[in-house]
Amino acid sequence: MMMKDFRIGIIRVITLKREEEINRHGKMIEEAFPNFRTVSRCIEKQPRGIFDEKSEDEAVPKIIRVAKQLLNENVDGIIVSCVADPAVNAIQTFSKKPVVGAGKPTALLALSISDKVGALGIGDEPPKPVSEILKDRLISYRKPRGVSATIDLERNIEFAVEAAEQLIRDGAQVIALCCTGFSTIGLAPILQEKLRIPVIDPIIAAGTIMYHELIRTFMLRSLWK
Amino acid sequence: MMMKDFRIGIIRVITLKREEEINRHGKMIEEAFPNFRTVSRCIEKQPRGIFDEKSEDEAVPKIIRVAKQLLNENVDGIIVSCVADPAVNAIQTFSKKPVVGAGKPTALLALSISDKVGALGIGDEPPKPVSEILKDRLISYRKPRGVSATIDLERNIEFAVEAAEQLIRDGAQVIALCCTGFSTIGLAPILQEKLRIPVIDPIIAAGTIMYHELIRTFMLRSLWK
Repeated sequence: MMMKDFRIGIIRVITLKREEEINRHGKMIEEAFPNFRTVSRCIEKQPRGIFDEKSEDEAVPKIIRVAKQLLNENVDGIIVSCVADPAVNAIQTFSKKPVVGAGKPTALLALSISDKVGALGIGDEPPKPVSEILKDRLISYRKPRGVSATIDLERNIEFAVEAAEQLIRDGAQVIALCCTGFSTIGLAPILQEKLRIPVIDPIIAAGTIMYHELIRTFMLRSLWK
Repeated sequence: MMMKDFRIGIIRVITLKREEEINRHGKMIEEAFPNFRTVSRCIEKQPRGIFDEKSEDEAVPKIIRVAKQLLNENVDGIIVSCVADPAVNAIQTFSKKPVVGAGKPTALLALSISDKVGALGIGDEPPKPVSEILKDRLISYRKPRGVSATIDLERNIEFAVEAAEQLIRDGAQVIALCCTGFSTIGLAPILQEKLRIPVIDPIIAAGTIMYHELIRTFMLRSLWK
């Protein structure tokens, strides 16, 4: 059997203009999963993305709308590129194709490495999907100084490193990056190299869980042929 | 960037004679992960495999010995093909390459689908790695009638289906197969088709977590190039 290619719709929960920016998470996914082709779409009128409950509530109907468009275009799966997993449960009620966010996968892959997880995010609290999966195995949560939305991350990388160092002092044995903006700026390899601790990138985590779900949904029978 | 191929050592925790049997789990992994090449090895003198604490204790030093051989042969990662994750922590203390069992991955991928997990196994209790990851999200555990070791599974498929039906009545929304012998007999697609419930195959789960760990360990920097 030859592995088929899968077309994955990526929903960016922030309004971006440049094609290169819009496609950045999709490009990472294609690098890490060579049989994935991606098509990326932004939600409208949210230039600061999702950073609190209000901005999440505003985004949910827009995400659902984009998901319906992508399903009409016959994608094989949908990744909502956000650690809050916004609208993921809602989309699953009508989608026959796999749908994943980045939050639950990030928590699960952190847990695959250690039960002492430190989470780095942009909100005052850890994203709900992460705290719900990890419960008392989330031993510490930090956000970098100077950051209150994903667009603040690029100019605050040194504060992200500082917050990660605090997580290690708190006892973390793995760091879960709890905003896909950390993927945009490539923080995971920086932290792994500087601090010598395993780091979970949320986009790669989402791609990994999507990969398994595609095999389980569409290919399982063929593995025994 | 081109995805590199990875060589994965598969440790079979049962003594098998025919090449085709020895390589069966490796072949599944290669089908599902086309950039994996596998090399499979059995432990010695355990024709019934691992089925209780005593047989697990006997197997651990043998698994460690095989792991050292495989690492000497320069594999990129090791999968211990057993849901009890025997010797996995011990091998991790000396291996620079990723090491995974099938237990923790099976639990994590079940949790990616639902927090109401039913587990199907061959022992009197669920495997420890599974109950430790899932805690109260493991809502029921069953073993098929007539089964006390992995080699009993082939002639008791109808009892495995019966036990899975009981798990569904218990409220399970996903079924975690907690013995890699279920992979050998191809139970996951049978249950998915017959009972219309998501089923986690332990070998595919192990391969998925290995895939992520290989990207994280060896390729993370290159994803941003």
